[in-house]
Amino acid sequence: MQLFDPLFGADRVAGLLDEPAWIAALLEVELALSAVAAEVGTVDETDADGVERAVAAVAGVDPAELGAESVEGGNPVIPLVKRLKAAAARIQPGAERAVHPGATSQDVMDTALVLLVRRAGSRIVDDLGGAADAAAALAVAHRDTPTAARTLGQQALPTTFGAVAASWCAGLDRAAARLTDVLDALPVQYGGAAGTLAAAHPHGPAVADALAARLGLASQDVPWHTERTRIGELAGALGVAAGACAKPAADVVLLSATEVGEVSEAAPGDSSSMPHKRNPIAAVTARASARRAPGLVATLLSSMEQEHQRAAGAWHAEWETVSDLLRATSGAASRLRACLTGLRVHAERMAHNLSLAAGEQGSGTGHASDLVDRVLATRRR
Amino acid sequence: MQLFDPLFGADRVAGLLDEPAWIAALLEVELALSAVAAEVGTVDETDADGVERAVAAVAGVDPAELGAESVEGGNPVIPLVKRLKAAAARIQPGAERAVHPGATSQDVMDTALVLLVRRAGSRIVDDLGGAADAAAALAVAHRDTPTAARTLGQQALPTTFGAVAASWCAGLDRAAARLTDVLDALPVQYGGAAGTLAAAHPHGPAVADALAARLGLASQDVPWHTERTRIGELAGALGVAAGACAKPAADVVLLSATEVGEVSEAAPGDSSSMPHKRNPIAAVTARASARRAPGLVATLLSSMEQEHQRAAGAWHAEWETVSDLLRATSGAASRLRACLTGLRVHAERMAHNLSLAAGEQGSGTGHASDLVDRVLATRRR
Amino acid sequence: MQLFDPLFGADRVAGLLDEPAWIAALLEVELALSAVAAEVGTVDETDADGVERAVAAVAGVDPAELGAESVEGGNPVIPLVKRLKAAAARIQPGAERAVHPGATSQDVMDTALVLLVRRAGSRIVDDLGGAADAAAALAVAHRDTPTAARTLGQQALPTTFGAVAASWCAGLDRAAARLTDVLDALPVQYGGAAGTLAAAHPHGPAVADALAARLGLASQDVPWHTERTRIGELAGALGVAAGACAKPAADVVLLSATEVGEVSEAAPGDSSSMPHKRNPIAAVTARASARRAPGLVATLLSSMEQEHQRAAGAWHAEWETVSDLLRATSGAASRLRACLTGLRVHAERMAHNLSLAAGEQGSGTGHASDLVDRVLATRRR
Amino acid sequence: MQLFDPLFGADRVAGLLDEPAWIAALLEVELALSAVAAEVGTVDETDADGVERAVAAVAGVDPAELGAESVEGGNPVIPLVKRLKAAAARIQPGAERAVHPGATSQDVMDTALVLLVRRAGSRIVDDLGGAADAAAALAVAHRDTPTAARTLGQQALPTTFGAVAASWCAGLDRAAARLTDVLDALPVQYGGAAGTLAAAHPHGPAVADALAARLGLASQDVPWHTERTRIGELAGALGVAAGACAKPAADVVLLSATEVGEVSEAAPGDSSSMPHKRNPIAAVTARASARRAPGLVATLLSSMEQEHQRAAGAWHAEWETVSDLLRATSGAASRLRACLTGLRVHAERMAHNLSLAAGEQGSGTGHASDLVDRVLATRRR
Repeated sequence: MQLFDPLFGADRVAGLLDEPAWIAALLEVELALSAVAAEVGTVDETDADGVERAVAAVAGVDPAELGAESVEGGNPVIPLVKRLKAAAARIQPGAERAVHPGATSQDVMDTALVLLVRRAGSRIVDDLGGAADAAAALAVAHRDTPTAARTLGQQALPTTFGAVAASWCAGLDRAAARLTDVLDALPVQYGGAAGTLAAAHPHGPAVADALAARLGLASQDVPWHTERTRIGELAGALGVAAGACAKPAADVVLLSATEVGEVSEAAPGDSSSMPHKRNPIAAVTARASARRAPGLVATLLSSMEQEHQRAAGAWHAEWETVSDLLRATSGAASRLRACLTGLRVHAERMAHNLSLAAGEQGSGTGHASDLVDRVLATRRR
Repeated sequence: MQLFDPLFGADRVAGLLDEPAWIAALLEVELALSAVAAEVGTVDETDADGVERAVAAVAGVDPAELGAESVEGGNPVIPLVKRLKAAAARIQPGAERAVHPGATSQDVMDTALVLLVRRAGSRIVDDLGGAADAAAALAVAHRDTPTAARTLGQQALPTTFGAVAASWCAGLDRAAARLTDVLDALPVQYGGAAGTLAAAHPHGPAVADALAARLGLASQDVPWHTERTRIGELAGALGVAAGACAKPAADVVLLSATEVGEVSEAAPGDSSSMPHKRNPIAAVTARASARRAPGLVATLLSSMEQEHQRAAGAWHAEWETVSDLLRATSGAASRLRACLTGLRVHAERMAHNLSLAAGEQGSGTGHASDLVDRVLATRRR
Repeated sequence: MQLFDPLFGADRVAGLLDEPAWIAALLEVELALSAVAAEVGTVDETDADGVERAVAAVAGVDPAELGAESVEGGNPVIPLVKRLKAAAARIQPGAERAVHPGATSQDVMDTALVLLVRRAGSRIVDDLGGAADAAAALAVAHRDTPTAARTLGQQALPTTFGAVAASWCAGLDRAAARLTDVLDALPVQYGGAAGTLAAAHPHGPAVADALAARLGLASQDVPWHTERTRIGELAGALGVAAGACAKPAADVVLLSATEVGEVSEAAPGDSSSMPHKRNPIAAVTARASARRAPGLVATLLSSMEQEHQRAAGAWHAEWETVSDLLRATSGAASRLRACLTGLRVHAERMAHNLSLAAGEQGSGTGHASDLVDRVLATRRR
Repeated sequence: MQLFDPLFGADRVAGLLDEPAWIAALLEVELALSAVAAEVGTVDETDADGVERAVAAVAGVDPAELGAESVEGGNPVIPLVKRLKAAAARIQPGAERAVHPGATSQDVMDTALVLLVRRAGSRIVDDLGGAADAAAALAVAHRDTPTAARTLGQQALPTTFGAVAASWCAGLDRAAARLTDVLDALPVQYGGAAGTLAAAHPHGPAVADALAARLGLASQDVPWHTERTRIGELAGALGVAAGACAKPAADVVLLSATEVGEVSEAAPGDSSSMPHKRNPIAAVTARASARRAPGLVATLLSSMEQEHQRAAGAWHAEWETVSDLLRATSGAASRLRACLTGLRVHAERMAHNLSLAAGEQGSGTGHASDLVDRVLATRRR
């Protein structure tokens, strides 16, 4: 909600996942369904034109009303189609025949979900990239800045801050690459009531492919109404992305501690009652957002057990959970990006802290600087 | 969101957990803080009166604005207090001294969260009770109606439908009783910046108790800023309540299957394209809501690891997660209540199904009817 | 496994949850079933004596063999009963009639699980208590030792280390009290194949109560084959206990950091390659164990959706998950106890660290010392 | 454990993940470290030969003893290296210099974990493939067998059983393909105490690559001590695999129900007390195993937040969790394979059930048979 979204970074995708976005995506799919059916010839082209106008007429529907109407049938597509048919019939009698051709509610819900996921997902990829760029810049700037490596909270041997930041960068890049692959592979859904594309027979696969092309989605090969590996993969990729953000965020929190003082955020929060405090709020809230991902991933993986040809609950549990997971991951990525961009690095403090255990440690930083070069070289590939 | 809340039953508590509800609760705590401080004498009574008027003036703050202002400090209390002080100073110069006396942001956030939890929680208790009542009514009506007990999906020996419904009732009652206890035990939070009640010294404990009394909450004994067993207990109780709802919901889905046909919801959903279908939508969506609880419980339990005197992320992760868990559990309870209220029981179909395995089973229903009596007797205690 | 159990503290309960313990508990229940049936008169007393000897004969069964035999029927009780009957018939012809009277496999599995849970659980309660005692001793010893309260990793205002330790104590005590209640409420399971106690009719409830009494368990009121609120409550209580351990463990890790250095474990680990390190291994492994709990809790809560009169999977998923959760929680508690017992507190370092932000903070510790007294007073009640 | 492993299918990988397997893998890594160091010239070749003999001498170490010795240092590598050095010095004085060259405990633990994961993982891939083959065979055999598509538990329109089985096959194939990719990408770990490969400088990267080559693992590019995206990806892939198994298992349970009776397992379990029952035990236990995966995935994703250069708990939490997740997923895959292999399909019952809603449904199966062909064609690619 707006009260918390800016703080947790969910505002980056909130507008892509809210009620207007859902309704617009549902209508986008319905419009494409009619258009494609007209192309293939299973509905009349003039009727399809009428549907286009009906879609425009229905676009402003009140989400609360549509929500209330959804209760009876179990999803918002049923009342939306009812409204669409009524509008079509009113605008151009007969056009209602071209509404929702050969489709079942899940076709529209799933395809709309994929549209939302791709849009919000690409913003997450962008923020992961931005955070990785910031980490890379820190790695370059501090390629050779000595700092203490710490294991189990204890100073171990020296490394460089560049190596630390390069490792952040590597994790973020890896997470972004996988998420991109998963997003790109998300297909259209088109199977009809029994998943047999019966209502479009013998044009079923052609309609499905044309629908995918029109919406800019991957082809489905076969319908995946209750074959949810793709949703599981999406969940996994988002969970990994959140985890890749949590790591540098945790480091920044610890390195910002009063007694350590090796980094500080460019715009630290202040405390009204304690003016001496410099809270690493961006890191704190990146971490808070990231923490919410694993439980949501578990919900989606549990929900892969979808019985028969339409699950009685497990499918429905996906809708808001996917949205919440996108919000949490987006928050982690955008807040981490804010945290790392312009992060102030206090090299003298690093040197001082290293001296605390001096004499006990070796002094060489080994290949630390080389590791920076390796990560950066990988990025350029 | 409104598009999905009615379907998933979250509309029962949505208005108790939304942005206006959060802001109202935060202000309610601030108001109580000032009033109590005036009672104890740590602030001037006239100043406290000024705060009361300032609270009224600030109540209409735009949540989006407050959300944007929250980013710097890391929570909405900081800008809210700033606004409150400004309003107080404007309305009655000097009254700003009586704003937020001796408190830290977490005192206000936690206490407000407790207020929201109690309100939404009591509605969940009410719905669990309503669902249990409906199950009890079914148990009474079908105390002696023979039906097949099924183990691993296979018909085993006969039982009565009354015994089945009584078992639903027992689980719901047990979950409601525990949730009630947990809600009642949720205390006020008052510790100040270091959790030492220093700013109210030597009146700290007295202020904390008076605050609890004024807000109708349990006393805190000691501050619990990073001692989160209570939040863990709340999570557990809500998770159990969701699970207690999932069980009968799953049974209703299975007993409604075309080939079984032993029950049907009073208001089954229909499918626009397939008029012969009678979907048990209330059970389906109760189950969907319940499925979302365990992952959220895990997030809250993971977040019990709150370091030092204010956690850098784990605390922040609670706010929306608690709210989401309340919504999911409420949805499960309210949709199950709708499902069980007026559930139609087809005794003749039960008899017919039992006959499918006839001769292979014993015919006695043993103590099934007695079990109904036992559960109902427990309820009356 | 033995390779990791001592490190993670799971060795405290490993022997109470291993294969011999499972087989012994299953046989303990079978023995009690026969004895109670003889009391009530549904089996012959001489036959029951034969069962006692058969139990002794079967006790040494190879777990791997029994495991292999379990595959066909879906649980180990089926082949165990087969062996028991064979042994009874061999030892005393006719005694096989007194084996497994009126019971179904789940009666024996659930009751045996309850026996194991109570035994392992009481050891967890003991370790939580031991850890709380150690925290209380630290609170007393350092009731007035000033130290920095830290919020979001930054020094805030002063508190006392006694207040910090008292808060640890309060959380551990609270978790132990709830776990004790949950363990004490765990009942026997006795319902027969359809949950109607039909095979013991009209003595069903009497048999169930006598069985509970003999095994020292709570009465069941009604069978709970698929009404799993108790398992959910157990999961919740264990999850909260693990979380209550994670909090002080995290604090000890952070306070032991090279740059902070305010506490050190009595027996810190050393690193073969880096002799200057003093790793807080007990805290690290307490934390590691605690981290494994929330996911297991989620699995058990998800598994509350148990359909019909015997779930096809959800019930089976409980067996090892409950055991793993007991091991994880026990590990957290026992390792935390080792961590806190004799924890060395470096008051001078606390004073030094406090001086880092000197002048910026107030100097009073407010009610910190009073909070110690409050927690200790609560313990004595 | 052996008592439950055969039932839940974990026996397929149990021997690859037990204590001897862990110790063997740790020693395999130590052996490779010494050999590679000799190649690069950082240790003496004769000394490395001595290490080889020391490894053989230490191989039979009692896991319980090693476990007990692990407590002090926090992992089993420390005492194992101590034993290895002692054995090397005894067997060939001076050879102890060639033990554990340039490595830190985590290098050995992580690389050994990767070895175990690859071995157990490839067996899971094999079982996923076997289950997919069985599904494909069912799809071919029943390409045109009409059966009811069911949505929300209600009969919808007809499909073919071939299309149902083809969908199972598609999910299993997809999960296997991703898991294979993830396994293949798992790299060696070699970074030394600070992750800088300092002790092998200037040969660090060369040693790391040679180590990878010798062990048959992917190269690491840079050390990943606290950059755990790979572990997160592994968790995700295993979670998806478990979910892909849960779906057909749930279907088989439901289709085997007494009132549906459309399939039965080749070797159904029987119930000693109820000879008329035919329990789909393989499906039930596949489902039970699969249910345990999501919570474990969440634990691993949560544990990606690994601070500094060695996490104080989150790393340690991975060891047994990864193993448990491999066991659960393997169990799901192997039991599903047993379930689907030779599954009996009762076409006449399918026809009968379809007739229950006759007249209300359309009769065409649309593209159902084409979907079978599409899935099979994809497999051949």
